[in-house]
Amino acid sequence: MSVASESLTTWIAARRAELDRLFEARLVPPADGDPGRLLEAMRYSLLAPGKRIRPLLALAAAETAGPPDDAVLLACGAVELVHCYSLIHDDLPAMDDDDFRRGRPSNHKAFGEATAILAGDALLTLAFDWIAEAGERAARPHDFLAASRALARAAGASGMVRGQARDLGEPTPTTLAALETLHAEKTAALFRGALEVGGCAGGAAPDARANLARFGTAYGIAFQHADDITDEDHAEHAGAARDRLEALVADACAVAETIGARADRLVGLARALSHRPA
Amino acid sequence: MSVASESLTTWIAARRAELDRLFEARLVPPADGDPGRLLEAMRYSLLAPGKRIRPLLALAAAETAGPPDDAVLLACGAVELVHCYSLIHDDLPAMDDDDFRRGRPSNHKAFGEATAILAGDALLTLAFDWIAEAGERAARPHDFLAASRALARAAGASGMVRGQARDLGEPTPTTLAALETLHAEKTAALFRGALEVGGCAGGAAPDARANLARFGTAYGIAFQHADDITDEDHAEHAGAARDRLEALVADACAVAETIGARADRLVGLARALSHRPA
Repeated sequence: MSVASESLTTWIAARRAELDRLFEARLVPPADGDPGRLLEAMRYSLLAPGKRIRPLLALAAAETAGPPDDAVLLACGAVELVHCYSLIHDDLPAMDDDDFRRGRPSNHKAFGEATAILAGDALLTLAFDWIAEAGERAARPHDFLAASRALARAAGASGMVRGQARDLGEPTPTTLAALETLHAEKTAALFRGALEVGGCAGGAAPDARANLARFGTAYGIAFQHADDITDEDHAEHAGAARDRLEALVADACAVAETIGARADRLVGLARALSHRPA
Repeated sequence: MSVASESLTTWIAARRAELDRLFEARLVPPADGDPGRLLEAMRYSLLAPGKRIRPLLALAAAETAGPPDDAVLLACGAVELVHCYSLIHDDLPAMDDDDFRRGRPSNHKAFGEATAILAGDALLTLAFDWIAEAGERAARPHDFLAASRALARAAGASGMVRGQARDLGEPTPTTLAALETLHAEKTAALFRGALEVGGCAGGAAPDARANLARFGTAYGIAFQHADDITDEDHAEHAGAARDRLEALVADACAVAETIGARADRLVGLARALSHRPA
C-alpha cells in the first residue's frame, strides 16, 4: 500500500468516525423514552454500519475549498439522511419489496410498513433541517441555501425520485446507454448532489462547484457499474460496464485535477472504484 | 356580511388564485411528456381543489411585516406541498387506508402505491427546493434558512410525523386533554410552521415571529376541533370541543392583536373557525 493510499485510508476512517458520532449524538433517544418506535426506526437504519460514501465525498468536496468546520460536517451529514430515507422507502413492499438490507431485516420488516414510511419521511425532512441549521450558524448563508437547493434537486422529481419512478414504469434497459440513463437518475443524481452540497457548504468558487458536480455524475455512474459488477446485476453488460467504469473514473479524476491539489481525496476515492473486488 | 368580512373574502379569493397559478406554473408537464406518471400523480393531488388554508395563513403572517413579494409567495406555497405530501402518505394502505380524498380516489387508488409514495416524497422534497430558491433571490437569506428550518421542524419527527407515529401506536385518546396533545402534533405543528414560514420569509421581527408561532398552535388545535365537530369525530367530546374551540380562537385573536393592525387578516381567519357550519 502506498503512502498516498494509506493516508486516504486514515482520512476515511477519521471522517467516518466523525459522521457516526454526529448521527449518534443527533438521534439520541430522549430521557423520557418518547417518541419510541419512530426514533427507534430512524436509528435502526441510520446507525446501521455503512460506508458513508456520499457524505465522505461531500466532505472531500468541501475540503477542496478549505478545512470543514462543524457546520460543513452537519450539511454533509444531511446527504446520508437522504440516502438512508431512500433505502427505507425503496425496500417497501410496494416498491422493491426487499425483506433484507445489509444482512438485517429491512426497516419495514423490523418496524412495520407504517413506521417505515414515517421514518423515511422524517429522515428526509431532517436533512433539510440540518442544512438550514448549518446555514444559520454560518457566515455565508447563501452557500447553504444553494446546498439545500442542490440536495432537493438531486433527491426529488428531477433526480433520484424521478429515477425510481422511471424504473417502476419501464422494462429493464437492454442497452448500456439506456442502463446509464437510469443509473444517472437513480444513483448518480444523489452523488452529484453530495458533491454540490460539499462544494457549496465548503465555500468552493462557482467554477469549482460546477466541476465538483461533473465529478459527482461520473463517480455516481461508475459507482453503479462497480456495484452491478460485484452483484452480477445486468451481467449481459458486464464487459462493457467494466470498460465504462474505467473511462468514468478517468473522467472523474481529470475533472478533479482541474480543481487543484486539494482534490487529492476525490481522486483517491474515484480510483478506489476501479479496485473493488469483482 | 360586514365590510371587514367582505374584504377578507376578497383577499382570500385573490391569494388563493395566486397560489393556484403558482402551483400550476411550477408543476407544468414538460413538452416531451416525460416524466409521465410521477408528475401526473403530483399534479393530481396538488392541483385538486383545496382551501389552501395553510399557505393563506403563511401569507397573512408575512403581511404583518409588509406586502409579500414573489419570493415570499413561493416560500408560503411550499407549506401546501408539505400538507399535500402528508395527505398522500396518510391515505396509504399501511397508514389510514383511505380510498377517497375529497370525493375523488386517493392518490394510491389513482396511481398505485409505489407512485403515490414517490409523489409524496417528491412534493416534500420540492417544498425545501422552493424555500431555498426563494432565499437565494432574497436580500435576507438568513430569514429563509429560518423558514426552512421552521418548516422542517413542523413537518418532521418533532412535529407532524411524530404525531402520525403516536397515532399509530396508541389507542384513541379518552380525554380531551389527550386528544389535544395528539391534535397539537398531528395538525397544529404544521399550522405553527406555516405561520413561522410566513413570519420569517416576510421579515417579521423576532417577537412578532414568536407570537405568530403561538397563534399557529392555537389556530391549529381549534381547526382540528372544528373539523372533528363537522365530521362528528370524537363525538363524545363534542360539547367540550366546542367550548375549547371558542377559547382557542379567542387566544389566537388576542395574540394576533399584539402584532398590530396588520394582523387583521389573521384575526379574521381565526374568527371564521367559530362560524363554520356544524
